[in-house]
Amino acid sequence: MAVSIAHLGPTGTYSEAAALACARSLHDLGEETLLCACPSIARAIETAAADGAQLAVVPVENSLEGTVTITLDTLWQLDQMQIQQAYVLPISHALLSLASNQSGIKTVYSHPQALAQCHGWLKNFLPEVQLIPTNSTTEALKYLDSDRQAGAIASRRAAELYQIPILAYPINDHPDNCTRFWVLSLQPSPFFGPTEEDKSHTSIAFSVPANVPGALVKPLQAFASRSINLSRIESRPSKRSLGDYVFFLDLEADAKAPSTQAALAELTAYTEILKIFGSYNIQIFTNDR
Amino acid sequence: MAVSIAHLGPTGTYSEAAALACARSLHDLGEETLLCACPSIARAIETAAADGAQLAVVPVENSLEGTVTITLDTLWQLDQMQIQQAYVLPISHALLSLASNQSGIKTVYSHPQALAQCHGWLKNFLPEVQLIPTNSTTEALKYLDSDRQAGAIASRRAAELYQIPILAYPINDHPDNCTRFWVLSLQPSPFFGPTEEDKSHTSIAFSVPANVPGALVKPLQAFASRSINLSRIESRPSKRSLGDYVFFLDLEADAKAPSTQAALAELTAYTEILKIFGSYNIQIFTNDR
Repeated sequence: MAVSIAHLGPTGTYSEAAALACARSLHDLGEETLLCACPSIARAIETAAADGAQLAVVPVENSLEGTVTITLDTLWQLDQMQIQQAYVLPISHALLSLASNQSGIKTVYSHPQALAQCHGWLKNFLPEVQLIPTNSTTEALKYLDSDRQAGAIASRRAAELYQIPILAYPINDHPDNCTRFWVLSLQPSPFFGPTEEDKSHTSIAFSVPANVPGALVKPLQAFASRSINLSRIESRPSKRSLGDYVFFLDLEADAKAPSTQAALAELTAYTEILKIFGSYNIQIFTNDR
Repeated sequence: MAVSIAHLGPTGTYSEAAALACARSLHDLGEETLLCACPSIARAIETAAADGAQLAVVPVENSLEGTVTITLDTLWQLDQMQIQQAYVLPISHALLSLASNQSGIKTVYSHPQALAQCHGWLKNFLPEVQLIPTNSTTEALKYLDSDRQAGAIASRRAAELYQIPILAYPINDHPDNCTRFWVLSLQPSPFFGPTEEDKSHTSIAFSVPANVPGALVKPLQAFASRSINLSRIESRPSKRSLGDYVFFLDLEADAKAPSTQAALAELTAYTEILKIFGSYNIQIFTNDR
């Protein structure tokens, strides 16, 4: 039976590109795959959590725009999803339009993150255009047919799929623009290396008792005292009151290593809710197709 | 001469409400004020940084949606702005429309944060509507005149200013929804208490050397070992490469207290760039008008 992979659709999004990378690695293991395009990132995670898909591939963080907050918030709420693998994909944006040239463009549509990532280029080359946010880079394309003065920022792959000319490429301000994705599933997945092998990263999240001075200090010392490096720390509102947070940590360690086990055991004394999203490796891609 | 206060406009935004709160406290000190509406949060901060306004009032964080990343990113880039005061304002959203009742609404426009804050209400009462993001809650109102099947999510104050009927209020999912704002200026401002008096909070930001294991542990220990509590920690991409961050910390201490001074001095040994945005108090408002 084919392995189903939920992702943010429609076809042509960067999330689909990440899901395709996941599908290719499964094909190498002799598995068939089925991509399942969802209308939102939350829905992609919820689909896998409800067993409607075996895997979900979702963006976590972009090198320019930072955290994809809906991914962290949804993981915290659902709580039983485990991270199997991380992918880092380069993101290169193109300007797509049916206009005969750049100077004919009056409006540019795209996802807010893509607009932000091309902020400098737009300021230089299209300073007068109106920028209009859309729900995905692919959604931006639907305005082009009816309006030849409209442009969209999307991937080269989207240009090919929907047969829309590329007027400029690449147009992102930083050539190293890339996005990290997580592959999630309910159960430990056999497709991402043996579970007894040490993984390079572990992600956890926790809340601390509200209004207790020093509440964040002790959890961080649990790792610091054992020389476990945090590659990332992110606070998200608990949605209870301002100043009350859930903390997301990426540790450079495997959860089953003795020092990590000791730190996590100590952590339970300081935290209100502690969730361990599992250990995984990071695979870095250098080609945007 | 009137004190000029830059904020995200146009009139009717929540940022303007925060700027008005700032203006009222200046009026109490006998000062005249002049509000200066800017097209973006970045522009409001840049206006004050270029001495085009004496103060800028900008949102930092919402209790549901978290950090306003553009505020942190702009502060880091500009680097010489100082925080004079923090405000916490309750945020209550209304549904505005020229439709005769809710069931006539097919489309709802608003700022993405406001749409997110009313997610549950929209799902319950308007499950079929199309949600369209705008650049501010006020910008959403411009669609209502030409389309009687359109609604906008904005403040009650915006409804009054633009004379648009309110169909439902409040519609935010969490009644405690509130936003923290910072009052910024280039120079220590005489309007927010004597500088020799201890302030409750200090905000700093720093980058650490890239690819050095444990780089974040030592800066955090500098505060932990002195029992200085962090009320908030936020990582933002440095925009150099993925996994390379700038950390923003809010300390529950005055920067000129001896223990804070010692921690900050120690910090310089571990950080690449360290910026201290100053010490300030937090004023909490309980009325949304």
